[in-house]
Amino acid sequence: MKKILGILGGMGPAATADLFAKIVALTDAKSDNDHLQIRIDCDSAIPDRTAAILEGGVDPVPEMLRALRRLEGAGAECIILPCNTAHFFLPQLEAQTSVPFLSMLEVTAAHCRRAYPGKTAAVLATRGTLATGLYDRALEAASVPYLLPDEQERDDLMAVIYRGVKAGAPAGTYRAPLERVVTRLAARGADYFILGCTELPLAVAATGLACPVVDPTRELAKAAILCCGGRVKEG
Amino acid sequence: MKKILGILGGMGPAATADLFAKIVALTDAKSDNDHLQIRIDCDSAIPDRTAAILEGGVDPVPEMLRALRRLEGAGAECIILPCNTAHFFLPQLEAQTSVPFLSMLEVTAAHCRRAYPGKTAAVLATRGTLATGLYDRALEAASVPYLLPDEQERDDLMAVIYRGVKAGAPAGTYRAPLERVVTRLAARGADYFILGCTELPLAVAATGLACPVVDPTRELAKAAILCCGGRVKEG
Repeated sequence: MKKILGILGGMGPAATADLFAKIVALTDAKSDNDHLQIRIDCDSAIPDRTAAILEGGVDPVPEMLRALRRLEGAGAECIILPCNTAHFFLPQLEAQTSVPFLSMLEVTAAHCRRAYPGKTAAVLATRGTLATGLYDRALEAASVPYLLPDEQERDDLMAVIYRGVKAGAPAGTYRAPLERVVTRLAARGADYFILGCTELPLAVAATGLACPVVDPTRELAKAAILCCGGRVKEG
Repeated sequence: MKKILGILGGMGPAATADLFAKIVALTDAKSDNDHLQIRIDCDSAIPDRTAAILEGGVDPVPEMLRALRRLEGAGAECIILPCNTAHFFLPQLEAQTSVPFLSMLEVTAAHCRRAYPGKTAAVLATRGTLATGLYDRALEAASVPYLLPDEQERDDLMAVIYRGVKAGAPAGTYRAPLERVVTRLAARGADYFILGCTELPLAVAATGLACPVVDPTRELAKAAILCCGGRVKEG
């Protein structure tokens, strides 16, 4: 019997659409009925997570809880968040529900350990995610060596994510800062790159950047399929 | 004030993901908060619509009503169905709710009249959709001239949709039947092609087929954005 998957989305909408598409594409299904039961709450009213963490902006938890309640009402039995930064608030959400969450960060760290044993990851993420230390803790718990971006690289990543993907700008406008970040981190010893913001897989696909990457959205999609009783497509 | 959009999906899941991605991509938004409020019920348990219409298969309406009730519970104020064939059951759904639906077929016919005045459309669709006469009625109501596929072309379209896209098969396995359908209909006088099954825009994109098409999923996405108080991106 399949479990109903709830996606607490809207953070941002493009990343939510990307996660949903990856779940469908990675499900081993011969007909509609082989797919998961999925409920998506794409709540564009959730205040910006990075602004809340770094600048004392509006607390996103009350609106996230409203979306959580709607997902509970729709029968969700396992919930995922397609926003790395939002995982900072996960303990507050978990304290308010009996429905289990799958953590994108834990799922990603487990994949890094399996796929790149002994190699060094670089964490590409928003200033908000990096400030929380969320990836540091998840990677340390899984004994995965890692590097973090310096100040200049963080500025470049924020430009790619906010003025690029979230603003719907053409790939040509953010290819240069993205390449600069990857080149600098590789020079410091990074073997592969964790796309630790859900907008980054979209940025990498749009710019055609070629380097070894771990896509947490993809890892979360695979983990969610398995958790809900589906089969992951081979290859 | 934005209205909450409900997507009664799962028919199929890939088409639902495609509609969601098109709504996000076509919304003129500079930040997450400019996007629509969207609730998606991707209900993979809805029985096959074509089988119900053509072969007396399981009635999909009871399960569609369960999904509709969940969307009402999540606050949906306008509902859309990313499945052409499912529109056969729309009057039965409309009779059971006070929430208005936007019809993909009416939206598409209106676009055909504006975009291709006086030209002849060919309707590419499943045997189920064609048997219902849904597009015939919508196009006639909008005074749009049209052609329908013959028996051989219907067989080819069913192969593209069911053994191709819905089965997750590679594009190379269904390029030939899709090209055959388009070539034959053009020879009979079709000026452009209505991709009247939500799996067909995916098939056209995957095979790289180049011919003038109307994508009802795209037209529905644009109409839904406007209906819910969003802005459609130019160009």
